[in-house]
Amino acid sequence: MSFNTFGHMFRVTTFGESHGVALGCVVDGCPPRLPLTAEDIQLDLDRRRPGQSRFTTQRQEPDQVKILSGVMDDAAGRQVTTGTPIALMIENTDQRSKDYSDIKDKYRPGHADFTYEAKYGIRDYRGGGRSSARETAARVAAGAVARKVIPDITVRAALVQMGPHKIDRANWDWAEVARNPFFCPDKAKAEFYAEYLDDIRKNGSSIGAVVEVVAEGVPAGLGAPIYGKLDSDLASALMSINAVKGVEIGAGFGAAELHGEDNADEMRMGNTGPVFLSNHAGGILGGISTGQAVVARFAVKPTSSILTPRRTIDRSGAETDILTKGRHDPCVGIRAVPVGEAMVACVLADHLLRHRGQNAG
Amino acid sequence: MSFNTFGHMFRVTTFGESHGVALGCVVDGCPPRLPLTAEDIQLDLDRRRPGQSRFTTQRQEPDQVKILSGVMDDAAGRQVTTGTPIALMIENTDQRSKDYSDIKDKYRPGHADFTYEAKYGIRDYRGGGRSSARETAARVAAGAVARKVIPDITVRAALVQMGPHKIDRANWDWAEVARNPFFCPDKAKAEFYAEYLDDIRKNGSSIGAVVEVVAEGVPAGLGAPIYGKLDSDLASALMSINAVKGVEIGAGFGAAELHGEDNADEMRMGNTGPVFLSNHAGGILGGISTGQAVVARFAVKPTSSILTPRRTIDRSGAETDILTKGRHDPCVGIRAVPVGEAMVACVLADHLLRHRGQNAG
Amino acid sequence: MSFNTFGHMFRVTTFGESHGVALGCVVDGCPPRLPLTAEDIQLDLDRRRPGQSRFTTQRQEPDQVKILSGVMDDAAGRQVTTGTPIALMIENTDQRSKDYSDIKDKYRPGHADFTYEAKYGIRDYRGGGRSSARETAARVAAGAVARKVIPDITVRAALVQMGPHKIDRANWDWAEVARNPFFCPDKAKAEFYAEYLDDIRKNGSSIGAVVEVVAEGVPAGLGAPIYGKLDSDLASALMSINAVKGVEIGAGFGAAELHGEDNADEMRMGNTGPVFLSNHAGGILGGISTGQAVVARFAVKPTSSILTPRRTIDRSGAETDILTKGRHDPCVGIRAVPVGEAMVACVLADHLLRHRGQNAG
Amino acid sequence: MSFNTFGHMFRVTTFGESHGVALGCVVDGCPPRLPLTAEDIQLDLDRRRPGQSRFTTQRQEPDQVKILSGVMDDAAGRQVTTGTPIALMIENTDQRSKDYSDIKDKYRPGHADFTYEAKYGIRDYRGGGRSSARETAARVAAGAVARKVIPDITVRAALVQMGPHKIDRANWDWAEVARNPFFCPDKAKAEFYAEYLDDIRKNGSSIGAVVEVVAEGVPAGLGAPIYGKLDSDLASALMSINAVKGVEIGAGFGAAELHGEDNADEMRMGNTGPVFLSNHAGGILGGISTGQAVVARFAVKPTSSILTPRRTIDRSGAETDILTKGRHDPCVGIRAVPVGEAMVACVLADHLLRHRGQNAG
Repeated sequence: MSFNTFGHMFRVTTFGESHGVALGCVVDGCPPRLPLTAEDIQLDLDRRRPGQSRFTTQRQEPDQVKILSGVMDDAAGRQVTTGTPIALMIENTDQRSKDYSDIKDKYRPGHADFTYEAKYGIRDYRGGGRSSARETAARVAAGAVARKVIPDITVRAALVQMGPHKIDRANWDWAEVARNPFFCPDKAKAEFYAEYLDDIRKNGSSIGAVVEVVAEGVPAGLGAPIYGKLDSDLASALMSINAVKGVEIGAGFGAAELHGEDNADEMRMGNTGPVFLSNHAGGILGGISTGQAVVARFAVKPTSSILTPRRTIDRSGAETDILTKGRHDPCVGIRAVPVGEAMVACVLADHLLRHRGQNAG
Repeated sequence: MSFNTFGHMFRVTTFGESHGVALGCVVDGCPPRLPLTAEDIQLDLDRRRPGQSRFTTQRQEPDQVKILSGVMDDAAGRQVTTGTPIALMIENTDQRSKDYSDIKDKYRPGHADFTYEAKYGIRDYRGGGRSSARETAARVAAGAVARKVIPDITVRAALVQMGPHKIDRANWDWAEVARNPFFCPDKAKAEFYAEYLDDIRKNGSSIGAVVEVVAEGVPAGLGAPIYGKLDSDLASALMSINAVKGVEIGAGFGAAELHGEDNADEMRMGNTGPVFLSNHAGGILGGISTGQAVVARFAVKPTSSILTPRRTIDRSGAETDILTKGRHDPCVGIRAVPVGEAMVACVLADHLLRHRGQNAG
Repeated sequence: MSFNTFGHMFRVTTFGESHGVALGCVVDGCPPRLPLTAEDIQLDLDRRRPGQSRFTTQRQEPDQVKILSGVMDDAAGRQVTTGTPIALMIENTDQRSKDYSDIKDKYRPGHADFTYEAKYGIRDYRGGGRSSARETAARVAAGAVARKVIPDITVRAALVQMGPHKIDRANWDWAEVARNPFFCPDKAKAEFYAEYLDDIRKNGSSIGAVVEVVAEGVPAGLGAPIYGKLDSDLASALMSINAVKGVEIGAGFGAAELHGEDNADEMRMGNTGPVFLSNHAGGILGGISTGQAVVARFAVKPTSSILTPRRTIDRSGAETDILTKGRHDPCVGIRAVPVGEAMVACVLADHLLRHRGQNAG
Repeated sequence: MSFNTFGHMFRVTTFGESHGVALGCVVDGCPPRLPLTAEDIQLDLDRRRPGQSRFTTQRQEPDQVKILSGVMDDAAGRQVTTGTPIALMIENTDQRSKDYSDIKDKYRPGHADFTYEAKYGIRDYRGGGRSSARETAARVAAGAVARKVIPDITVRAALVQMGPHKIDRANWDWAEVARNPFFCPDKAKAEFYAEYLDDIRKNGSSIGAVVEVVAEGVPAGLGAPIYGKLDSDLASALMSINAVKGVEIGAGFGAAELHGEDNADEMRMGNTGPVFLSNHAGGILGGISTGQAVVARFAVKPTSSILTPRRTIDRSGAETDILTKGRHDPCVGIRAVPVGEAMVACVLADHLLRHRGQNAG
């Protein structure tokens, strides 16, 4: 992963900050002749868009994507990829200059304000600049293209924990995910979250969450034994999402507590090939996919934009307090769900092409 | 991270498998005129070497490193780097053809046997081939070079959990790490682990662990806001270590349970600059180092080479049982401690050079 | 150089084809706090724009660049780079669907029509798609950013040969380059070219050319001894320009005819340091800049869009004839002059940052 | 191309200098199950080895290659690639410390002595260090592996010009290449070169040369329209060879002198598909292979190690003279022939895998 490019064969380069003219990405290396329209991409973008319930920020961003290049109509009149770079752009429609005078010289605790300035000697105080969660729209757009590259793989994600409250896995129902504002697969827990998060929101506080991504239909053989491990690339991709502080595969940190005989997934022969009797591995052994579902989980910290005053310093070094007024996400983990899907889709598309390049002969 | 190369400016390419002639790495992009001898590297390698206590595999691998290129004597007679590729080689002295007939056609549960063959159509059954933990010697060697690039940064690691048993952080004493065979900073817990792991070892079982890496002296400003995030590269690097199933930074998965006002680290002015009142961020905000200690943790699964028979299949698809006789590591997490240090050192060296390239002007 | 990205620290990713919505590029890794406006970039773009004399294609493309991201006003009110990706977009204003029915199923000799389809299984017949020379606008835009990174280096280019007619180097005057439509530094030869090319143009023919790029002020030390050689990266960058068939450095192919005593540039001490008594090396020895002017030359083939019918086949394999009616460039080498400058500027910016990363310590 | 790595899917990282312990390379991304032995590689190395005639340096370097990793015996007992990194090592057997006292503080004109020190602040005076032509052995070894990846492509090279004396192309006979010490395909010209070069050698002088590489059997479709152009990667690869100052494809610099109707290769239908009536394109149109032979040419400057004293300065800045006593290559272009083949083979192998990755679906 370079500064702003990730992937090797399926490569995504993103650009844009919260208050520039536009944000977007260039997807390079996409195979040709795949059907792709702006509507395909918009579907995924709409799932990520804020302001769809009282549990996400009330900002209104239409997030309409435009395909600038890399597609054309084929002989049958379908718009398809050409194999050349696909540039996607989302204009920032609401970049009016809000009054940032109360925060522009203060470092918000938990935000990148201080580190951004330490790095670049300049700070983009307008909505966090490049560090803004708005940038994740570009990832989701790229992920929609990635899905076209892996049509036989289903990548879905769900929120499985909010604060200390985990879902009951016995209740897991993928259909529920689309029915509640939390992308939660456990209907009962979703109802609990509604009340729980309302309290947090009203208090001007925020809370962390855990998101789980599951990719089904991944063929055995993607990845590499050591450095180009599929899990290594997933870890990088998911950790690169704003506010993520941890990533795990399969049993993850839980594997630290297991004995060898409990952790290793036994094998039997099924009707159509080898089957595993459990999936502690999360679909990846020795960096290479097993053919089981690939399961990754990531922890999202609570947003630091809260109403409670916090101690900080300003650019001159003077000590001061700060609080963040206005719209915010009480649980940014919610909107990270489609973002996690997108990143996993991109990694799998990349590994599919890499594997094919090395091994298709 | 490419198939077998990682880093951008400080780039490491590794090679070798458990039963080849040799393993090693090429370190490219290392700054010139840094003092470097084989002895410097050997010190780190010796910490990783097996067979130093009854708690690690009893294999005897001297793991003597040779510097093949990239150094010369300077005018003062010191051996220094030249700025050109540093090739490091460790010969496999004990590659006699052990009898693998009982496992060469069976897939060991929890090992990469099945996935390796699914990928390459061939399986290196001799000690796991490229998937062998022996490969981590190359990482440790590269890490020793990386330390020369970041002389003001101290990178240390410790085992902080074995099975479900976490250390008592109040007891943390870095000096203890060198005094017990577990790299454990909590003297009391190390004594407990000795008994605990002896039982596991005698039962032919194995157990997972959690390792924590702490880098002190990291200047503020390393990393990037989004894709070249310092934490993203750390996640990739640590997840690429054999048997690792999870990575977290700072509060990590614990951050999911926190409210915003508890998670964000407040700031005050200290004598020599800004100070943070806590370090939930693990020294990284918005992908960029804060100047606090960088803190990463990773979970290591229990080795799957155990004495209990497990159900599996063989290459012909027939169902069978397998057990792994002979020497093994009851807790591979122990030897992962110096490996984790090495990977973090490499990532920090790379980011220091990248930062300097973009921002030193 | 990846499919559509080049550079390591100063990285450029381009997108767009002749008949898409827009073309442009993302410049990643640019240092922060460099003054940069759209006007700065437009100046270079305007030099490349077609339709400015009767010697270039009469298409009208305003080629107005927009900066989509990566800049903001600093405290002094100047627009500066932020260190994050700079996305540049040029909209295709004139993408009306011209009638391509006479050529859409035929492969134009000397064009990429046949190879494009052989590769992607689809052909973008609308103006050549990604292979269109229009794409070079993105390079020129990136080059304008690169110039900001290397303010002490002057990169200039000139047309030094058209067909078999070379300039007289004794007449070289950089000021002339801006005064004639050929970017020719030899006033007398420019007058000759005007007549010569008029004949070619009226005959519906075309002619090749050679362009020379000279970079002055390059500090000694950029590049690397072997694979990251400065000349190797220049060769790649210049050969990647449409229609280029050859690249040489310094004495170039002429060096093949020289004896060692004539080719090696002798050294003396000057007032401010070492000086070379000649520059057969073209400012690069062993892949590393010497401090002399870096001199590169590239050959541009004649455009294949000509009025003379040529034998070819169509997509069905039937033999046929083709001729290209309408506007064309009788000597595409002319407009390659600012493109060559841009590519050299990008390579030098990249190597400056890479050198600083490895060696600034 | 990174500092010391080139290729994307088929990636080669080289290491080593003339007076280190060893030199070699790591080949990453090679497909599995390809037969590969040290003998296969040695055949190519032996063609490059010095001391085989009076026309190359009289140094004796056995250049025996060892395969350190990445191969194993398959079920049929053949040694094959495993898909993991192939490390190749050539030990420097004759690294005795020759007396360099007369040149170690002087910069040899035409050599990298001055630039090396300007870059790294240290100079490897022992045989040129990393800049030594000895490094090309690693390229040849990598090229031998590359050939296994492209078994249907024949890559051959020949010396086509020495000093101002070009071969007569009417006499081209590939069989001649192995019969004379110049790799010259024109028997009559080879006889002329023998006398011509003997004079140069006896005078302690040296002369430049041009080498042509021809790859037959390249399928149409390798490359990309713009930045990942096949010719762009060839230019980079060939220009990275020591002493190369120019690269051209097909008609090359000659294309600058042609009219459009002469340069564009017309097409007809042959028995097995499209045929071209000429090959000015050198097998590449729009960056993508046409299916014709790929033809590249590169110019090699005369070595600067000559017996005539030349003016130079020393490290203290004092003006002085220098001459290079002892063994040298009167025409280093000769030994560049197998090196050119190797680089082209590596580029083609890389592009084959990249193409397959993107387009095999």
